[in-house]
Amino acid sequence: MQRTWRCAITAADLGEFGIIARIAGRLPQFPAVLLGPGDDAAVLRAPDGRVVVTTDLLLEGRHFRRDWSSPYDIGRKAAAQNLADVVAMGADPTALFVGLGMPKDTTTDWLDGLTDGFGDECALVGASVAGGDIARSDLVVLGVTALGDLGGRAPVTRSGARPGDVVAVAGRLGHAAAGLALFLAGRPDRDFPELADAHRRPRPPYACGPGAAELGATAMADVSDGLLQDLGHIAAASRVRIDVDPTALLVPGPLAAAAAELGEDPLNWVLTGGEDHALAAAFPPDVRLPGEWCVIGQVAEGEGVQVSGREQSRGGWDHFRD
Amino acid sequence: MQRTWRCAITAADLGEFGIIARIAGRLPQFPAVLLGPGDDAAVLRAPDGRVVVTTDLLLEGRHFRRDWSSPYDIGRKAAAQNLADVVAMGADPTALFVGLGMPKDTTTDWLDGLTDGFGDECALVGASVAGGDIARSDLVVLGVTALGDLGGRAPVTRSGARPGDVVAVAGRLGHAAAGLALFLAGRPDRDFPELADAHRRPRPPYACGPGAAELGATAMADVSDGLLQDLGHIAAASRVRIDVDPTALLVPGPLAAAAAELGEDPLNWVLTGGEDHALAAAFPPDVRLPGEWCVIGQVAEGEGVQVSGREQSRGGWDHFRD
Repeated sequence: MQRTWRCAITAADLGEFGIIARIAGRLPQFPAVLLGPGDDAAVLRAPDGRVVVTTDLLLEGRHFRRDWSSPYDIGRKAAAQNLADVVAMGADPTALFVGLGMPKDTTTDWLDGLTDGFGDECALVGASVAGGDIARSDLVVLGVTALGDLGGRAPVTRSGARPGDVVAVAGRLGHAAAGLALFLAGRPDRDFPELADAHRRPRPPYACGPGAAELGATAMADVSDGLLQDLGHIAAASRVRIDVDPTALLVPGPLAAAAAELGEDPLNWVLTGGEDHALAAAFPPDVRLPGEWCVIGQVAEGEGVQVSGREQSRGGWDHFRD
Repeated sequence: MQRTWRCAITAADLGEFGIIARIAGRLPQFPAVLLGPGDDAAVLRAPDGRVVVTTDLLLEGRHFRRDWSSPYDIGRKAAAQNLADVVAMGADPTALFVGLGMPKDTTTDWLDGLTDGFGDECALVGASVAGGDIARSDLVVLGVTALGDLGGRAPVTRSGARPGDVVAVAGRLGHAAAGLALFLAGRPDRDFPELADAHRRPRPPYACGPGAAELGATAMADVSDGLLQDLGHIAAASRVRIDVDPTALLVPGPLAAAAAELGEDPLNWVLTGGEDHALAAAFPPDVRLPGEWCVIGQVAEGEGVQVSGREQSRGGWDHFRD
């Protein structure tokens, strides 16, 4: 068998400043960036006079695996989960900053894939990767910070839901959890490639975040830890109870089929699976919601989250208790 | 010998949300924070209509060692190096965001120390730790992002130095490098405790950053990788040559004494040692500099950095080539 010999240029060959130049050269800067990568700090426009900021830490082996996800997937996912937090405030993302730790033998192919993943996900919302930092590390480490602009809108926090509000969800639920279950069962791509892909690359409903703010959403959260847990955060912050109607939660065909194969309950993935980065929001009862939103429950007096009238523990992800 | 028994509460005992609540409870929020920790994202004032942003990744074993630095020291240093990048643009720091990866068995004492280190360093400049993220990790990982406000001033970049400008430094040089050399020689605290402390906790001259902008600085950089290397960045970005007069560089007594003990050249520490986070800036030749600034050279036509008329390689830190 003939092998194609490829010259693998590594991070060590490029050196710190070579790496930075290579990354920066692949990333377009949109007009919100007044001063981009290459100085002590970047300068961004904040036309609203306020800025929305969120940060996440992603660690190889814990948040992603290099044998399950391509560098491009990892970049897309790392960007998506931060951009989703920005839109969950009702803001438009403007910029991402990326701290990247990686081994010395990281190839330029890998680095370019990661960079393009970040760039392409950001381009979906018109945001720029406006700066970062690199360091050598045994495992890949990503410290990602996203900024956004509220465009004159009030931020939609978790604390404004009122009894009588309807609760709705935009985006997918349970898909990333199903994909993860397939990976863990050692059969990710064979029968359900779209679920494996959902694990690799979330598809947050970006436009629905600022859209919800325009529609008068009283509370909103990014569903990153599981629907019940994130609704629980809204319920706690708003001092209300949230009643979920499980018959309103759709279980798409592939999810049901994958669950049957693995002997799992697909509704459990929908209720407790994280990482799809759907948006959950409360709206005044008279709101007319566009088709992206699916009403799944109501806000009532009380506390906690109930499904079919039964109190739910907050089943979901805890980084220190799994 | 009697031992005091202490009940060590760990990160695993607290759980993810318990840790976040504990950290947030120790951190005061200044008025620039409109919405602090606890939602999908924070909301900060950006009264200038622009915002300065910088991010750094700090890894245990690479940027700090838990046997050399206390958690409080680590927090102070991680905050300081990011705040220094903000002031090096001529901006006033407003907020810090911290992604923290740590082992499950991290104690609350350790966590409180780190938190207080971040809080106390931020308090020096009136900035808040306004948000963050936590994750489980075998080694301690810090992803730190700092934001700042330009207060109507133009950002002082690296690219504006002009032939004829004077070059000046504020803050300490070579101290952290001397401290590191002492640690590496296995004798940090005995004879030169102030140098060991300089390694543990930089003391950036915060007020000098915005001050330099007010004085009309044409270019500025945080000295994090070594004076020659960071002046090299200014020279390259400004397309000029920088001539350093080594007789203008002070070698304080303890630095000279430590160098003598270790058989090192103290001027080498001053010229190439990083992590003190001094500020280096170029100013118009007619500037009247306050006492915090020490003139160390001049800007000329050409390229690179010369010391006593000799071209310097950019000896300094490269994360991928050491």
